[in-house]
Amino acid sequence: MKALVLERKDELSLRDLPLQENLGPRDVRIALRTIGVCGSDVHYYTHGAIGPFVVREPMILGHEAAGEIVEVGSAVTEFKPGDRVCMEPGIPDPMSRATRLGKYNLDPAVKFWATPPVHGVLRPTVVHPADFTFKLPDHVSYAEGAMVEPLAVGMHAATKVQVKPGDLAVVIGAGPIGMVTILSALASGCSRVIVSDIHEPKLELAGQLGPVIPVNVRSWSLVDIVRRETDGWGADVLFECSGYAPAMAEMFDLVCPGGKVALVGIPLDPFPYDVSKAQVKEVRVENVFRYAHVYPRAVAMIASGKIDVKPLITDRFAFKDSIAAFDFAKTMPPSSVKVQIDMPL
Amino acid sequence: MKALVLERKDELSLRDLPLQENLGPRDVRIALRTIGVCGSDVHYYTHGAIGPFVVREPMILGHEAAGEIVEVGSAVTEFKPGDRVCMEPGIPDPMSRATRLGKYNLDPAVKFWATPPVHGVLRPTVVHPADFTFKLPDHVSYAEGAMVEPLAVGMHAATKVQVKPGDLAVVIGAGPIGMVTILSALASGCSRVIVSDIHEPKLELAGQLGPVIPVNVRSWSLVDIVRRETDGWGADVLFECSGYAPAMAEMFDLVCPGGKVALVGIPLDPFPYDVSKAQVKEVRVENVFRYAHVYPRAVAMIASGKIDVKPLITDRFAFKDSIAAFDFAKTMPPSSVKVQIDMPL
Amino acid sequence: MKALVLERKDELSLRDLPLQENLGPRDVRIALRTIGVCGSDVHYYTHGAIGPFVVREPMILGHEAAGEIVEVGSAVTEFKPGDRVCMEPGIPDPMSRATRLGKYNLDPAVKFWATPPVHGVLRPTVVHPADFTFKLPDHVSYAEGAMVEPLAVGMHAATKVQVKPGDLAVVIGAGPIGMVTILSALASGCSRVIVSDIHEPKLELAGQLGPVIPVNVRSWSLVDIVRRETDGWGADVLFECSGYAPAMAEMFDLVCPGGKVALVGIPLDPFPYDVSKAQVKEVRVENVFRYAHVYPRAVAMIASGKIDVKPLITDRFAFKDSIAAFDFAKTMPPSSVKVQIDMPL
Amino acid sequence: MKALVLERKDELSLRDLPLQENLGPRDVRIALRTIGVCGSDVHYYTHGAIGPFVVREPMILGHEAAGEIVEVGSAVTEFKPGDRVCMEPGIPDPMSRATRLGKYNLDPAVKFWATPPVHGVLRPTVVHPADFTFKLPDHVSYAEGAMVEPLAVGMHAATKVQVKPGDLAVVIGAGPIGMVTILSALASGCSRVIVSDIHEPKLELAGQLGPVIPVNVRSWSLVDIVRRETDGWGADVLFECSGYAPAMAEMFDLVCPGGKVALVGIPLDPFPYDVSKAQVKEVRVENVFRYAHVYPRAVAMIASGKIDVKPLITDRFAFKDSIAAFDFAKTMPPSSVKVQIDMPL
Repeated sequence: MKALVLERKDELSLRDLPLQENLGPRDVRIALRTIGVCGSDVHYYTHGAIGPFVVREPMILGHEAAGEIVEVGSAVTEFKPGDRVCMEPGIPDPMSRATRLGKYNLDPAVKFWATPPVHGVLRPTVVHPADFTFKLPDHVSYAEGAMVEPLAVGMHAATKVQVKPGDLAVVIGAGPIGMVTILSALASGCSRVIVSDIHEPKLELAGQLGPVIPVNVRSWSLVDIVRRETDGWGADVLFECSGYAPAMAEMFDLVCPGGKVALVGIPLDPFPYDVSKAQVKEVRVENVFRYAHVYPRAVAMIASGKIDVKPLITDRFAFKDSIAAFDFAKTMPPSSVKVQIDMPL
Repeated sequence: MKALVLERKDELSLRDLPLQENLGPRDVRIALRTIGVCGSDVHYYTHGAIGPFVVREPMILGHEAAGEIVEVGSAVTEFKPGDRVCMEPGIPDPMSRATRLGKYNLDPAVKFWATPPVHGVLRPTVVHPADFTFKLPDHVSYAEGAMVEPLAVGMHAATKVQVKPGDLAVVIGAGPIGMVTILSALASGCSRVIVSDIHEPKLELAGQLGPVIPVNVRSWSLVDIVRRETDGWGADVLFECSGYAPAMAEMFDLVCPGGKVALVGIPLDPFPYDVSKAQVKEVRVENVFRYAHVYPRAVAMIASGKIDVKPLITDRFAFKDSIAAFDFAKTMPPSSVKVQIDMPL
Repeated sequence: MKALVLERKDELSLRDLPLQENLGPRDVRIALRTIGVCGSDVHYYTHGAIGPFVVREPMILGHEAAGEIVEVGSAVTEFKPGDRVCMEPGIPDPMSRATRLGKYNLDPAVKFWATPPVHGVLRPTVVHPADFTFKLPDHVSYAEGAMVEPLAVGMHAATKVQVKPGDLAVVIGAGPIGMVTILSALASGCSRVIVSDIHEPKLELAGQLGPVIPVNVRSWSLVDIVRRETDGWGADVLFECSGYAPAMAEMFDLVCPGGKVALVGIPLDPFPYDVSKAQVKEVRVENVFRYAHVYPRAVAMIASGKIDVKPLITDRFAFKDSIAAFDFAKTMPPSSVKVQIDMPL
Repeated sequence: MKALVLERKDELSLRDLPLQENLGPRDVRIALRTIGVCGSDVHYYTHGAIGPFVVREPMILGHEAAGEIVEVGSAVTEFKPGDRVCMEPGIPDPMSRATRLGKYNLDPAVKFWATPPVHGVLRPTVVHPADFTFKLPDHVSYAEGAMVEPLAVGMHAATKVQVKPGDLAVVIGAGPIGMVTILSALASGCSRVIVSDIHEPKLELAGQLGPVIPVNVRSWSLVDIVRRETDGWGADVLFECSGYAPAMAEMFDLVCPGGKVALVGIPLDPFPYDVSKAQVKEVRVENVFRYAHVYPRAVAMIASGKIDVKPLITDRFAFKDSIAAFDFAKTMPPSSVKVQIDMPL
């Protein structure tokens, strides 16, 4: 069976790419079922690189994944063939200093799927550590399981910023990460979320995710609306999910005294940070990166119904059409949020 | 018009009790609309005292209240007659050390409605500081407004214990405080709640509040069920809402390593605390008392629909029947949670 | 007796400036004894303004002060004439939202000595709220008492950034605020401090404050030295006390994964903030502003000997020479840290 | 060469006890130099058991240790023969859930020296994981290195309880753990410590460790003295290091509103916990157990001079006299704190 291979910038092919994968004692072998397309996958396709990570050899794409266990290593007792699972795409060095401190997302030696030179999982099977594999209850679909990866980013941001019950949050940017952050903020204690974007269909969808006030910053001032909704006090927490420097410039006008900011979006360039504005409010700024220890929590939130990711899955393709899926994803209409690819059974 | 007066232990009357209340510049005068009956009100009725607080003079009962502004002081700009509001029943000394540190609930000089010798609000009007009065949106009823007081207890507990998104919580005791704690835990980030009690009707109601697993400890071992639901790891947080010593004895068997316990219920006597059990898990124990800065957050949660307190309001009485309401409350069937009294318009 | 009056930019005079000050029930009247000269005092002298605060009327300078109680208001029981005290220069609105939350330093309505249009205290007496006045033990001098104000800035920064026992800290900038921050970091749990500056005499003095490694960034790379001292891991906490944008640009190279940054210095312009560098380490950035609830703690640290501020007091002038003191301060040699002015007895 | 073997309750011998220890790739072999005698070692000697840990086979005692590297595994690059080191006595399962969360002290599978059936290190050499071995600078003696273990307990308690700069602490009990906790509290930000005990020589020594107020509770009321020293407010933090139930009963009278308690001592039986007293102050209780990630921090504190453990080392024995050392330790005079045993070179 074939894999989706990024041969080089702008060139995808669906072809055999034989991989030698040994099953260690604490590993499981998983047949992939559903894989989401992430902005980073598309970026490797269209640019051949993200920052220092350059695609120099053919690389399989895909890292938002769910599948079925087909084989377990000799020391694995918690899984058996047939178990439905989702997987963390990043595998840290278990003995690194960051990992031992409980912060494995900060381990620079992490091996992350579909980040050169590590292959992704748009392919039939993968061998993966059991410790980074998580069971899905029967009533959680593979499509939902493949959403755990992006959802974990939003939940990690909400965790780091320590949402307090009843907080009002602002989310800047209604892309996929903005959307999962809205869901996470609401599920983590926010009473309401104000979300800003420039695309009306995204704002419409965001507005249906709960007590969410969508603000199209083409027509409205976000600062004005936050002031109106908070009697001039400001938002308790702000999640920056756009990576857009002009939006970041007004962050400190949006939060309240003692407010908190989570920087989730990754801007290409440094942005101008107004220290004295941040100081008079003693804003706390959390810089968040991926997630650690969040997967089981995200699965629990989906399983209990506290978070419903299904409205975000807007487009599905069969694996045989996965090149078309990527071509769709790179010019995606604003009404689309998440593209997923289903593997053949 | 009349007030509900506790003349002495076991004796209530509905009668005039003239109060001289001056309207200060930062005060508002409020016509009461709905008042909830709290266990403490009933306890004063049946025992004449709670701990060191002894009813020595006739005292008006009631402290869970919502009403309508009828007059505002000269320095009040944020309210006007006709505004619908709920009120914090405790007024601290604004210059006390605890209040200045932002912890006014810990100010020993606080004056709390229906705690001798301070009158409660089962009466036509009350003068109250604007700073402890909170606007209700139009779509939030007076009945919901009168539920803000108990809800604030649950939300304060969830805030103090710092629920993390995806936590599994145990709530011991499905009385009114247990119920608002379940709602607060779920709204603050818990993926699920396991609640224990011995009354089936309470557990049934609790089970309808969201992803809640009711456990009747007459038939089941709470420890076993928590282990089963957490693969033996234990609950992330535990809210003790029963004040029942034998239940407290097993707290440290229920939480996970690094878990947290919030003591919300108030036992009459010291309970035996097993230090070494708590140590090997490094449990953090938060002792929680009332609430501070929670009212606007609780109103926001009700207003946005994140928390629905209406299922907890099981019984309503007209003010003219308020003695009957108290007699009902003191022998309340297990299917009842909250009794409220409506004032005449 | 006279006051030191900033008539306008560049013009000081020592003259009578009669002030009508009523003693409220919770006020004390204090005879000033020692007043430190702060960079902000000098800046008003040399520039006539700091940001939006413009000197439009003659204004008395000075806000780092200690003195002796000479009269107490009718409701003051904790002080009596003769008590030796130091005073917080900022008086917030006690009923503002920020103050009630315990964060009075964030109250925009705060009245701060020697910030236009509020007079400072280089004058014989001042009336001040007892709640912002703090007793000095007999063995703590007025000179030390006048150092409590700048020390409180450093201690507040160490408090906000939550130093953990054994942390290694970097302090950027060895000016007066850098110096008090070194003392605070060491007294708050840091095992060592690495401090950077370009002035050798300042670094020499800093090196004598405890286990401090001075780094002259004219000759050495701070990044290299931090790496060498931490086996490449980075500092646990960084206190930015220079307000110098090029220094700030390398902050995220200096801290460890999970490290923390306190922005204490106030740069004139926004600095370029490299989000992705901060994200891969999940740096927490605390923006700190003055202090709240720190004065009694700072007095306690000086009184118990945990912090010794005396080495920082490098220059003393009599009040009659206070214009000379300001002229000295505006062209201060790098071997000077803190100039103080003594009032006549 | 010989080892100190606990043959059974009350019977020690100095004899050969051959151990087969393989050097894994990430292990080091260490020649022991100095070993401290801990209360738990003595308790195994005099009682043959601690709780569920029963000595059923001859077991080597000793777990507070420093030594010299004599051989390193194939994958060890950070050590070389001749390096002077101290060692953590507990080795957790690196893949356990608690360890992965960064809380390896809570891993129930930890193997801890001199806890049956794991041998201690009163013997010539030991093989140990490099990851739990820590370099000592040249100016830190082996005797100080062997004090890192008890010091880590105190520093961990101070870390968990989050001392704030300027806090006043109470330490109950001036035994070895009380002493290291005093040092840790002072080094972590406390301005002063009030310590209680019944043995005058211990209190005298404690009083020389810094700004420490010793209170002999045979003659004085600790509550009265804490009130006097805090103007009636109470201590910010309390470290319970006695494990003595009557002392624990007054804990909540000693701390301030919002205060914190660290339970470090291990009482044999549950103690009566007064919930309502703890609630009206919203006390936070931290139950602390050993330490995690503290060793390098404790070494740094000793190395920089922030903490001086030498005054606590009151008694030294040569290894050939180690049975005498234990007999001394079991009936130790109150002027003794820590007994150490030196290995022959």
